[in-house]
Parts: sequence; structure tokens; C-alpha cells
Amino acid sequence: MSQETIIIQDVGPRDGLQSQPRVLPVEQRLELIRALLTAGLRHIQIAAFVSPKHVPAMAGAEEIVRAMAGEKGEFSVLVPNLKGYELARAAGSRLIEMVLYGSEGMANANARMSAAAVDQQASEILERAADDGIRVISTISVAFECPFDGPVDPARIEEMTDRLLAQGSEVVVIADTIGAAHPAMVERLLTALVDMHGAASLGCHFHDTRAMGLANVYAAIHAGIRRFDASIGRVGGCPFAPGAAGNVATEDVAMMVEQMGFDTGIDMQNLLDASALVKELTGNAPGGRANAWLQSQLARTA
Amino acid sequence: MSQETIIIQDVGPRDGLQSQPRVLPVEQRLELIRALLTAGLRHIQIAAFVSPKHVPAMAGAEEIVRAMAGEKGEFSVLVPNLKGYELARAAGSRLIEMVLYGSEGMANANARMSAAAVDQQASEILERAADDGIRVISTISVAFECPFDGPVDPARIEEMTDRLLAQGSEVVVIADTIGAAHPAMVERLLTALVDMHGAASLGCHFHDTRAMGLANVYAAIHAGIRRFDASIGRVGGCPFAPGAAGNVATEDVAMMVEQMGFDTGIDMQNLLDASALVKELTGNAPGGRANAWLQSQLARTA
Repeated sequence: MSQETIIIQDVGPRDGLQSQPRVLPVEQRLELIRALLTAGLRHIQIAAFVSPKHVPAMAGAEEIVRAMAGEKGEFSVLVPNLKGYELARAAGSRLIEMVLYGSEGMANANARMSAAAVDQQASEILERAADDGIRVISTISVAFECPFDGPVDPARIEEMTDRLLAQGSEVVVIADTIGAAHPAMVERLLTALVDMHGAASLGCHFHDTRAMGLANVYAAIHAGIRRFDASIGRVGGCPFAPGAAGNVATEDVAMMVEQMGFDTGIDMQNLLDASALVKELTGNAPGGRANAWLQSQLARTA
Repeated sequence: MSQETIIIQDVGPRDGLQSQPRVLPVEQRLELIRALLTAGLRHIQIAAFVSPKHVPAMAGAEEIVRAMAGEKGEFSVLVPNLKGYELARAAGSRLIEMVLYGSEGMANANARMSAAAVDQQASEILERAADDGIRVISTISVAFECPFDGPVDPARIEEMTDRLLAQGSEVVVIADTIGAAHPAMVERLLTALVDMHGAASLGCHFHDTRAMGLANVYAAIHAGIRRFDASIGRVGGCPFAPGAAGNVATEDVAMMVEQMGFDTGIDMQNLLDASALVKELTGNAPGGRANAWLQSQLARTA
């Protein structure tokens, strides 16, 4: 029997590094992306087309996109607006990511726009992308709870998912941006969404703030989800906020789903090497929660 | 609507402290047990009737049992054999715990007996306990995977559970002693057991070695389980084995199930105080994985 596949998209080189105090030059970010490719990852979020003045950590996006042009894999780039979209298109990106907001408070804080204005801008980008033959991943952030507005109504997320898929998003990613979701909540919402749209056009993105990252991944798998964002070395989150924590680690997600019998295409020893690299480069990445065990295990079987 | 209850039995004062390099005197162990009572826990594993020569960390079991005589709660004690049973009974214990083995290798290593001999001894203890009106919790250790014999056949665990309940065990606890289980495996076995016996006579015991502790708790809840062992401050496991890790933390389990809407009777601030105490006493307890977030949250709402 052939194994069922789970797609893990590593968001470390973008989502992870964007919030790090240490700014990595393009060459080091390419080194990390290549380490992820060596580990077998084929879905990587590699860059963001944001203002390098405001986000120096993401400077050089064009260079990164061009460097990946010959490589085998799906390389996505974040675009925050139409200008970013045009820059990404001009650089040769064929797969972009947009962020939308499950709450008004987060749209205001993060995009300095109303949620409705973000939605309107997304519609325009989706229209242009369809004309240009560019694929779009839409992430709905704070899909469960917002640090400003509190709990998010699942009906709002269902309506947004409907709309984003109807407007041409290839995938809609349901994101627990602050790591506030519990697994029963995840399973309820994702079961409803999978029932409506099937699993192929859905993904999930969890943070490990409350240590429930893997529990939420399991709940989503239970609901039928087969695509997850994760971050090598658990890099990400705001290192200055007390109690905040990064994305769920690629190492932890890969370990769990491989043990459950899914195929990720990942080589665990090479993945741990990539984790060591991101720790060395950032001086800050905590590593997966199971890395101590993984290291001891690989040492034993080597 | 009244909330559904989840029972958390804190095993820190016995299972947790037994493996610590620092031996705590009776007075400090009582201080920890009282801190757990203050936090609202009403199920605590307080002592083990083992040889104080072989396990100095558990010396003074009689004294601890007597000190708890007037307190409100269910206080269990571990008995490794008939001699331990008689000592526990003489000290006034009304609730004992026995450990059985899902594998031959673990029975040999831990009890220096065959698994069949352990089972036979358990039958004798259950018979005496029935005569004496003493309640019994039976834990099946390495119920999923054994470090010596590898994967454990679920049929063996089902047979043992059947037998232990038929022989008068009030509760059978399914234990992932080395933290090797993944949540799909947990849900399969526990769903089968709940179908056969109902949830009231079953419990689970997870370790966090591979960071899947909370995912496994969720999988077990999904299967219907409403009783968990957990250890304050994540104390336990062997601090000398590379990659090994303790029981799932009481803090993490309480946080997750309370967020899911279950009632545990626990006061989270007082529980964090108990966690700080066990860290201070042992110099070694890592604390719950979500403690940083819990601390920041409680500071904000104070």
C-alpha cells in the first residue's frame, strides 16, 4: 500500500526570519533554503516583497527568487499589497502568498487597514494573478482568537474561506497566529471546512505558544487536513514578547506525521542539520521540542 | 449546563520524585503534596511502599500516608509486591496502585520477574484487596512500545485490561511509559477499550519525550477518556538518559482541558506556585511547556 502524503511547507526563511532580531544577508538565507531542499522539503516560503526600509530582514527578495528559479520545488513569496504583487511578478514568482485577517483588530494593527479593505485588495490581487497565471495561497490569520478582539466567530472564517476559494485561491491556510487555539476548536472548524471544500484546497498554520502545536496538528489531521506550515528550528514569533513562541517546528511535525505513517519526503538527519544551521545563523532559534530525543535516536541508529 | 469533569491525578510526589537525583525528606514531600491540595487537586499519588534501602527517595511512606489521613482527597500509594501491599494496608492506605507490563522485556528490567509472574502477583494482591476493602488502580506500563521489545500488540493490552477489571481493579491506566506513542495509535487503542469497558474505569498516563504528550491527551479525550496522570512541573523521567523526558506536566494538561471547557477543579495560579515549589525542591523540574505563557497571562489578568 502506498503511503498517504502530508505536505509540510517550511515558512522559516520568511515568517520565521522576519521577526528575528538578527538580520541575515541574502547569502545566509539562501544557505538555509538550500539546507531545507537537501532535507527533502519541496514547499518553502522563501521571501517577502515588503519594503526593505521597514523590514530589513526581508531585503533582497528578487535575488532569492532568481536563485531558486532552477531548483525543484514550490517556492512561495509573501506579498502584502498590489505593489508587492507587481514586484513579485516582475521577479519571476509563480506562487504568491497573501495574509488576510479573521479580526478587525489584527487587520488594523498589522496592515493598518480595515479588514474589509484588506479583503478588497485581496480580490484585486486574485484577479490580476488569474490573468497572469500566478498561483495564490491565502492565509487567514487569527482564525481562532485575536489578541485584540478575543474569540473569532467560525462563521466569519467559513465565509472568508468560501470567498477566497471562489475568487481563485489555490489554497486557503487557516492560521492560529498567536497560538491560542485548542484542539477541539481546531477539529470543529476544520471538519466544517473540509466538508464544504475538501482537504486539497486547505492547509493549517499553528504556533506553539501554549504547547498545543502538535495537538492542533493532530486535530487538523483528524479533520482531514494534509497540508501544514511549519518553521525549521521553531524559529519565529516575537522574541521580545513574554510567553510568545514561534511556529510549530518542522522537525516536530515531520516526526509526528512520519510516525503516524504519512510520507513527507523528509530526511530527518538532514532536517536536524538544517535546524542546527538556523540556530547558528540566528543565534536564537530554540529548535524542535523533540530534538533532544531525535538526536539521541539518530545517534543510536547511525 | 454543568461542565464535564476531567480527573487529573498528580503523580509528581511519587512517580516524579522517585527518579530525581536529589532525595527529598518527608517534610518537603508533604509540603509539595499540600501545595497540590491548595491548587485544587484531589487525586494525588503520594508515596511508594518500596524498600527505602533501594529507593531512598521514597523512604517514610507510612508517615506520608498518616499525614494525609485527615485531608480531603484520593491518595494512592504504589505497591510493588505483596509485602508492599501489607505495609500499605498496615499504614492505613485505602487506595493502592500496581504496575503491570505490556512487554516481557520491561517486566524483566523493572521487576526482575517474568510478565506472567507479575500478572500472577497482581491477581493475589487484587484478591486480598477485595477482602480488605482496599481499592486498586492498575497501571499497564509500556502499553504502546517497549524500549527493549519494540511495538506492543494492542491485543495484549486489551486482554490485560479485561482481566484486571474482571479481577476487581477500579481503574486500569494505559501508560506510554517511555513517551513513544503517537496520537493515532492512542486513539485506536483507547477507542477500543472505551467501547468494551466504558470510560469510567479507564485512565491514561503519557510522557512528553517526543513532545506528543498533549497530542496524546487530546487523542485519548477524543476516545472518551476523562482521567489522566500528570506530574507537577513535568518532574520525572530519568534525568541521566539523553532525550528522555518526564511525565506530561499537570500545568499543561490542566490548561488544555480547561480551555476545552472541562472542569478540573484546579486553580491555575496556585498550580504554578506548586510548580515553582517542585522546581525549587528538586533543583531539576523543567516546569510545564506552557508555563511561560501561563505566567504572562496570569500577570496580565491579576
